[in-house]
Amino acid sequence: MITVLCGGVGAARMLQALREVAEPSSITGIVNTGDDLTLHGLRVCPDLDTITYTLAGLNNEVTGWGLEGETWRVMDELEQLGGESWFRLGDRDLATHLFRTQRLAQGATLRQVTSELGARLGVDVTLLPMTEDTVATAFESVEHGRLSFQDYFVRYRHDVTITEITFDGAAAALPTPGVLEALEEAERIVISPSNPLISIAPILAVPGIRSVLERRRAQVIAVSPLIGGKALKGPADRLLRELGHDPSPQGIARLYRDVASTLVIDEVDQATAALVRAEGLSCLVTNTIMSEPGAGPQLAKVILDA
Amino acid sequence: MITVLCGGVGAARMLQALREVAEPSSITGIVNTGDDLTLHGLRVCPDLDTITYTLAGLNNEVTGWGLEGETWRVMDELEQLGGESWFRLGDRDLATHLFRTQRLAQGATLRQVTSELGARLGVDVTLLPMTEDTVATAFESVEHGRLSFQDYFVRYRHDVTITEITFDGAAAALPTPGVLEALEEAERIVISPSNPLISIAPILAVPGIRSVLERRRAQVIAVSPLIGGKALKGPADRLLRELGHDPSPQGIARLYRDVASTLVIDEVDQATAALVRAEGLSCLVTNTIMSEPGAGPQLAKVILDA
Repeated sequence: MITVLCGGVGAARMLQALREVAEPSSITGIVNTGDDLTLHGLRVCPDLDTITYTLAGLNNEVTGWGLEGETWRVMDELEQLGGESWFRLGDRDLATHLFRTQRLAQGATLRQVTSELGARLGVDVTLLPMTEDTVATAFESVEHGRLSFQDYFVRYRHDVTITEITFDGAAAALPTPGVLEALEEAERIVISPSNPLISIAPILAVPGIRSVLERRRAQVIAVSPLIGGKALKGPADRLLRELGHDPSPQGIARLYRDVASTLVIDEVDQATAALVRAEGLSCLVTNTIMSEPGAGPQLAKVILDA
Repeated sequence: MITVLCGGVGAARMLQALREVAEPSSITGIVNTGDDLTLHGLRVCPDLDTITYTLAGLNNEVTGWGLEGETWRVMDELEQLGGESWFRLGDRDLATHLFRTQRLAQGATLRQVTSELGARLGVDVTLLPMTEDTVATAFESVEHGRLSFQDYFVRYRHDVTITEITFDGAAAALPTPGVLEALEEAERIVISPSNPLISIAPILAVPGIRSVLERRRAQVIAVSPLIGGKALKGPADRLLRELGHDPSPQGIARLYRDVASTLVIDEVDQATAALVRAEGLSCLVTNTIMSEPGAGPQLAKVILDA
């Protein structure tokens, strides 16, 4: 069994790569829900959806986000009505949110709904939301004060200076049934190359999860999301700097040293392997840019063979 | 000032007709919300929307329902996901529900949202929901027991036998601010040719509304929704029969005699005028089929000249 801590795009690629070299039914993704939002009354789960769409082969490879063949009829109309349309929900995507919101209103759990959507779309790995309780990642910004995740990420395109990140509700949240079991029973636990501060940290903030990882540290391999000090996508490097961390493999090693025994870093960062090891982690070096041909399965093999 | 009690399609045509012969800004529609529902987390107000779309000239004249140029992308996707799609919401229509749900979540009142949608779409009469509290029209059916409005109307296409209609929540509901004033100040109060039992009765069930009409009965003109014993649209005739009323102008007169002083009936029912008068109402006879050329404004003139 392989259990993977997951944010959005990076985690989707990680799961895609793992399922090419391992039995899909043996893979469980534990997915961040700190970015979830209620918009127009609809429950939107960006990380769960990104992963579901990617594993279903429905992600738009041209734009790098959203669904293949997406249309924008509803949003265009909403804009004409003067409605809030800064967070663009495509027509296909909206169907997912209508489905989820209706099923939750009928009493289904988020775990059930995630599994129903996955089954309908042909996803063959198990996806578990980290919690079914409300956890909201929030930011303290210099420019605009307190910001919700999507205000920070979408409305301001993460072009603001952050002084603090909180995971509201995390202390009282329960892990989704199956999450702790998946971590206890895994032969290999993988921390995806997702943003450590806003994708992985909320998962670790759900009571019970961090302590399993600390206890099972020997089984945990993290993949650094940085390539030469930069995130492939998103604000990880800037956020690390602003919050006093080093945007380097060493900085990532410091963040993860209590919960992981091995860090995989990219070839371009090979020179920093000794610094990672100095933090008490094993260090593996390979190509971590999974968008490059063959790189994903090769990374997955490195992880499983470690 | 003219104030109109409104259901859906019949009321929309009535308001359309009145605004052709009277100053639109002098017209207020008080609209049934007993059919409202929350679907996929979205607040849907079928009567308010039918009226808004019709007055905005956006209604589909070919199908007789829904919006012009409507598309069904989201519903088609939802169906593929295995979601509930028996209540079909078009893409354009969905934008309205997203807008309303978001504004209500932001703290706007249903009155405000209705006014914002009307302003954006070019509606020039005032529309007031009968109440901003939750009132749910429900049915006791022989075949399926208790049914919500949309189960009765859409899911079972009103092809069931009804033994009782209730307006849940009505006793505790408050009229929307402005509703009682619009009734008190009107020179003419019109009861639209809507279904008396499921469109007009819920409005009269909101505390305070019926008593104003009883007191101002001399100003109230009702238009019969029946043509030769049949409703132009919907289940009015069958429901009247099943609940012990006569599906005729006389039956309508008995239902309205305490709240209206005049009943307008269609030419085909001319022979029943004496029976209406026997119930204590004045009776006016004209063409009430407003879909026929010129009939709407002529009916409106008859009402205003009475």
